[in-house]
Amino acid sequence: MPFTLPVIDDIAQPWLAARLQYLLDNKTKPVGSLGQIERLAQRIGLALGSEAPELEAPQLLVFAGDHGLAARGVSAYPSDVTWQMVENFLAGGAAVSVLARQHGIGLTVVDCGVRHDFAPRAGLLIHKVAPGTADALNGPAMSADQRDQALASGAALIQMLPGNALLLGEMGIGNTSAASLLMSRLAGLDIVDCTGAGTGLDAAAVQRKIGILRDVLARHPGAKTPLDVLAAFGGFEIATMVGAVLQAAAERRVIVVDGFIASSAVLVASQLKPTVLQRCVFAHRSGERGHALMLSHLKAEPLLDLSLRLGEGSGAALAWPLLMSACAILREMASFESAGVSRQDEASATAPAQP
Amino acid sequence: MPFTLPVIDDIAQPWLAARLQYLLDNKTKPVGSLGQIERLAQRIGLALGSEAPELEAPQLLVFAGDHGLAARGVSAYPSDVTWQMVENFLAGGAAVSVLARQHGIGLTVVDCGVRHDFAPRAGLLIHKVAPGTADALNGPAMSADQRDQALASGAALIQMLPGNALLLGEMGIGNTSAASLLMSRLAGLDIVDCTGAGTGLDAAAVQRKIGILRDVLARHPGAKTPLDVLAAFGGFEIATMVGAVLQAAAERRVIVVDGFIASSAVLVASQLKPTVLQRCVFAHRSGERGHALMLSHLKAEPLLDLSLRLGEGSGAALAWPLLMSACAILREMASFESAGVSRQDEASATAPAQP
Repeated sequence: MPFTLPVIDDIAQPWLAARLQYLLDNKTKPVGSLGQIERLAQRIGLALGSEAPELEAPQLLVFAGDHGLAARGVSAYPSDVTWQMVENFLAGGAAVSVLARQHGIGLTVVDCGVRHDFAPRAGLLIHKVAPGTADALNGPAMSADQRDQALASGAALIQMLPGNALLLGEMGIGNTSAASLLMSRLAGLDIVDCTGAGTGLDAAAVQRKIGILRDVLARHPGAKTPLDVLAAFGGFEIATMVGAVLQAAAERRVIVVDGFIASSAVLVASQLKPTVLQRCVFAHRSGERGHALMLSHLKAEPLLDLSLRLGEGSGAALAWPLLMSACAILREMASFESAGVSRQDEASATAPAQP
Repeated sequence: MPFTLPVIDDIAQPWLAARLQYLLDNKTKPVGSLGQIERLAQRIGLALGSEAPELEAPQLLVFAGDHGLAARGVSAYPSDVTWQMVENFLAGGAAVSVLARQHGIGLTVVDCGVRHDFAPRAGLLIHKVAPGTADALNGPAMSADQRDQALASGAALIQMLPGNALLLGEMGIGNTSAASLLMSRLAGLDIVDCTGAGTGLDAAAVQRKIGILRDVLARHPGAKTPLDVLAAFGGFEIATMVGAVLQAAAERRVIVVDGFIASSAVLVASQLKPTVLQRCVFAHRSGERGHALMLSHLKAEPLLDLSLRLGEGSGAALAWPLLMSACAILREMASFESAGVSRQDEASATAPAQP
């Protein structure tokens, strides 16, 4: 069944934007002195449609899947690491597990297409399309039906999710390759500028990876629309994430975008529905080559720049307290009037003449 | 009574540094993939002398004082804003109040020399040297005795402070001028490169400020040692902060440095005792012109870069969760062995040959 795109309103309401700016400008601080935190407060206020926004029950979803292309040696790790890391997420020992726990963020792993059968348990949702995508060098990574199934799964899981904020995470050996391919084709950029070391390839291996990805692109000259490109290059975890992003945007959730792979899902979603971007907060500029360029392409202003290149949603979780701070500033800071603090214009009026 | 510099050990122990690196490299993630968070974990581990560091009862001190030079029109706000903002901190309505509350950071305001008599109350410590410094264009901002009193006060308050982490905040209309003067003289940099808009001067007013600061520097040609420079340019809140930083370093507390003014205090302290810097975490690169250069001079790697220029310790509070994350990563993340996750070298061994 073809996936139906949800309606995603334009939420850039000038009156609310002006009201939020007025409130921020009247807080007891020099105008604009909280820099990017103020722009973040604006964005969250607009996304949640509130001048006193509250983020509630944040949920981090780790979308996991395997990639046929991984067998070509595009990653420094074997595909088995995907399921092993899923077990690690569920056991609480991965970076994202630690960070989600620190901040009280709900953590759920979604098996979108891992090449492994997991025992069912709390914190794991099985939406497996197939055990890994096909090798994109031989044909499309997935069929149109599989893509639509993944998109629908992503949308369905958001409909069940509590809270008003979605943090994007992912796990999938080989998925920087899929993200590079999506970026190159959808943004019209040379694959060289879209390809990095992933989990830790050396320079020679990156060159081999670029060669393979160039061949994959040449194998799919007809894939041009966002949906065709997504099917051609994969993966299941990215397609499921695209469905989740679209649905979360339709529900006016705040979407916290992690690194390179999560950004590639947002790139696909934003080409389907540009208003998706109004709800997105970009957590960080990663150390993966290509991410800075992808962020520029998306006109994104990331919060952190810590040379992270782990994925999992770890960057989204690290940035989370900044979103909470932005909301708290809007809700709790005093205004000049309420605190009885003198303003800059009074200052100018009373400042002594220079000697 | 002259201030006695405390003993501040060199804590760069190679064996602990190597052990911390080993632990970080064996966490279930590609080596180095948590970027700056890993270097932060190293730094905190060394500062606290532990491979499983725990930050306890963090304390943010807002050092407040007034500046004689403010009457020259170097700030966009009148001096009265200093005491009004102290009231705002105590009432819980300032940015730093909101952020400290968010993160469970203890907040104490220290009156180091505000031109106002405060009613005593919880959360306020009175260590007033005098009601504002003298005008540095007429003579030294403070006497050597006053400076030593401020340094001793700063040290004494740390000795009473719970916890193992000190976050530096400050409030003082005119104190970007003092910080610019300290930086210019102590780092040997032109005052133009050290001077910015502070709370929000326009371009013409910044030029006037630079002119005034140039005259102040010319008025004190003999001030060359860190202690003489501190007395010449002030202020009381900076001198008290210098004493606090030295004592906190001697006690091996982690010191979280806020923006331009806090960094200027660390600059003074580090010229007295270079090992101070081993305990410092620089929270952010601020939007104040001069701060980026000061950070380079201190070889600091700031965590955030959000164009903040508020002071108060707001940047230190915003960065605080990243320190907690770094410690949690060290303490709680699984190793490859404990989680049963395959390593990169096994990957290379089993990766298929290229087709």
